[in-house]
Amino acid sequence: MAQQGLNNMAQQSWVASANGDTDFPIQNLPYGVFDAGNGARMGVAIGDQILDIAAVDHGQDPALFAAPSWNGVMAAGSDVWDGLRARITELLSDAAQRDAVSPHLVPQADAQMLMPIEVSEFTDFYAGRHHAENVGTMFRGPENALPPNWLSMPIGYNGRASSVVVSGTDVTRPWGQLKPPHQDLPHFGKSRRFDLELEMGAIVGQPSSGMVSVEDADQMIFGYVLLNDWSARDIQAWEYQPLGPFQAKATATSISPWIVTRAALEPFRTSTPTRSRALLAHLHEPRPMLYDIDLSVGLTPEGQGESVIARTNYKEMYYSAAQQLCHHTTSGCPMRVGDLLGSGTISGPQKDQRGSLLEISWGGKEPITLDCGTERAFLEDGDRLTLRGAAMGDGFRVGFGECTGKILPATEI
Amino acid sequence: MAQQGLNNMAQQSWVASANGDTDFPIQNLPYGVFDAGNGARMGVAIGDQILDIAAVDHGQDPALFAAPSWNGVMAAGSDVWDGLRARITELLSDAAQRDAVSPHLVPQADAQMLMPIEVSEFTDFYAGRHHAENVGTMFRGPENALPPNWLSMPIGYNGRASSVVVSGTDVTRPWGQLKPPHQDLPHFGKSRRFDLELEMGAIVGQPSSGMVSVEDADQMIFGYVLLNDWSARDIQAWEYQPLGPFQAKATATSISPWIVTRAALEPFRTSTPTRSRALLAHLHEPRPMLYDIDLSVGLTPEGQGESVIARTNYKEMYYSAAQQLCHHTTSGCPMRVGDLLGSGTISGPQKDQRGSLLEISWGGKEPITLDCGTERAFLEDGDRLTLRGAAMGDGFRVGFGECTGKILPATEI
Repeated sequence: MAQQGLNNMAQQSWVASANGDTDFPIQNLPYGVFDAGNGARMGVAIGDQILDIAAVDHGQDPALFAAPSWNGVMAAGSDVWDGLRARITELLSDAAQRDAVSPHLVPQADAQMLMPIEVSEFTDFYAGRHHAENVGTMFRGPENALPPNWLSMPIGYNGRASSVVVSGTDVTRPWGQLKPPHQDLPHFGKSRRFDLELEMGAIVGQPSSGMVSVEDADQMIFGYVLLNDWSARDIQAWEYQPLGPFQAKATATSISPWIVTRAALEPFRTSTPTRSRALLAHLHEPRPMLYDIDLSVGLTPEGQGESVIARTNYKEMYYSAAQQLCHHTTSGCPMRVGDLLGSGTISGPQKDQRGSLLEISWGGKEPITLDCGTERAFLEDGDRLTLRGAAMGDGFRVGFGECTGKILPATEI
Repeated sequence: MAQQGLNNMAQQSWVASANGDTDFPIQNLPYGVFDAGNGARMGVAIGDQILDIAAVDHGQDPALFAAPSWNGVMAAGSDVWDGLRARITELLSDAAQRDAVSPHLVPQADAQMLMPIEVSEFTDFYAGRHHAENVGTMFRGPENALPPNWLSMPIGYNGRASSVVVSGTDVTRPWGQLKPPHQDLPHFGKSRRFDLELEMGAIVGQPSSGMVSVEDADQMIFGYVLLNDWSARDIQAWEYQPLGPFQAKATATSISPWIVTRAALEPFRTSTPTRSRALLAHLHEPRPMLYDIDLSVGLTPEGQGESVIARTNYKEMYYSAAQQLCHHTTSGCPMRVGDLLGSGTISGPQKDQRGSLLEISWGGKEPITLDCGTERAFLEDGDRLTLRGAAMGDGFRVGFGECTGKILPATEI
């Protein structure tokens, strides 16, 4: 709990930009991988700078910082996680460290961000109630909106780790089998209903074999990222019965480049909503395991300004990542360092709180008008989507930076 | 096509056991990883022996044989695949090589087999028509047995690579959420309807980005294994709507330890069955891409003899692995070296050709009587399941060895 104490203090860094309007104050210290011209290196964001962690006196085994991914640090376990965070806090808040450390700061503006981890496997959930009710109402009518199992377990499916990309990567519109309702047979074409999904991603930092409790699952989580699970709704509609989404979700999933650690989020814990149906005992949360994180989605058409098309909060989820991870292990499924769990689309109860265009435009029937006057039902070529998120502290915010990607036209084949 | 020529000759090895009743004649030469007391090493099966490939004059970069997995050889590409196979054929058929090579043979009886590859990601398909019709009839009635999309695409879902184990690994009965039809709400309990699925696994040996043709997909496949996709039918029934199987399939998937290469299977190519609905152009097979491989399932209750409960053939599949891999890339999904594709359960049209107990016992309603007199609807603790498979040549067979696993009682929690 030492970290929680540190976070709650209105602490300052000797890096000036960390003390103003920034996602990355001394209370945050998220982990990423950057390239500022000297190859891929592991870094820590502070204000508008990146600390080149391998180059400073970090107090840990140097081998942990040799590979350009945080998997090694994750595998080293929670004592290393705590020790490293305490040491970085010291390096960046103690003015006596300034001379030694400042040569190893790189401006974020000069760096390209790379994937922060090697993703072992990717699982995507469907654990936001407003999203599930919206989508269920559209597909099955309001009486059958929530599937019978939905209030008993966090419904999830295995996604495709090879398709996870870091923010800034362009996303090419996919082809696929499409069968509009008025046709009897499918054709092969470019997706016309390409969409985003606003999610949080939880990164599993410790392995398991056998079933783990919700409490142990929480302790296995290293940190969180923003996650956009790009989705081709027309491919999905034709393929998803009976075995779930497959190619509709395999084009790309974007994550933000900075892993905000569980330690940094401790002050922002909050409980999942009141249960509509009692959960089975193994899914009970012993303490609050969601987080109060403000989220938004910006859409920028090519050559135009950005419109914010949704604002919501991670606390709208019905199940926490810890509950999802517990459920994931019930059958004995082994979890590994680097597994990524998508929360499911995060929508609030209001129309302007919906985390996908499927919901915002109600299946395409109610296009929205952007600030530039253009209408959108689904994504158009050239559109840039940008997710943002931050937990609001007293005089600071623990932010995630941006998770952005631009839609490129489908490849001609 | 040089390899095909070699396979068709009634070739002999100087390893005597390779010329008799064996799955592993000179025409086969499958690849595995073994430990005979000196750690994990890469090997080639020949008769009742294993060739320690790193120890002989294999003619390739020694670095390819340093790691105890075949991923490096796969990544090296088809010229290496062809060159290595030609060299091993020479080493094991030319009597002049006997003195140099025979010290590096290890009896299979003295070796433990390990995972032959690092599985990158695991995808499981549902591409056997008899299986899909049987299961669909049980779940949705005979009129709706096949989902509308089934004749247009190989339906698949992403499985869990971390749960793939090598033959010989025990499998512990899972816990899960169970909701029998007569109950309104689920309880958490031990699966009572634990089942096998007889499948073939195709191993992807080359990566892709963007869509690949059926022909290119075929060339990306390094080889095939037997695959048992253990399935908890009661967990599956409650969880699988709307996003597909998840924990029901995550306990374990067993594969046989020897990768039978595509080169070894060339003489046994056969076409997929007549189409009931014309396929879209991108899924057309330019030439035969299935294989004629006899398959069987043996069930051995604890302390009893084995009963063969099913005999079928891989050629019963409606879609080939090449078609599945092509479909897998349509959205731009990147494929990686070490990806594993499960064919889907392979059932024939007759009752004794069904590749799962769900089908054999018709949802548990028609238990079968084993040779020892015991009845089985689903698997009991202590049961051992053994898959076998072989392509039958003229005077030899290209076999897969066994894919076996024993059911241990559920852990008490």
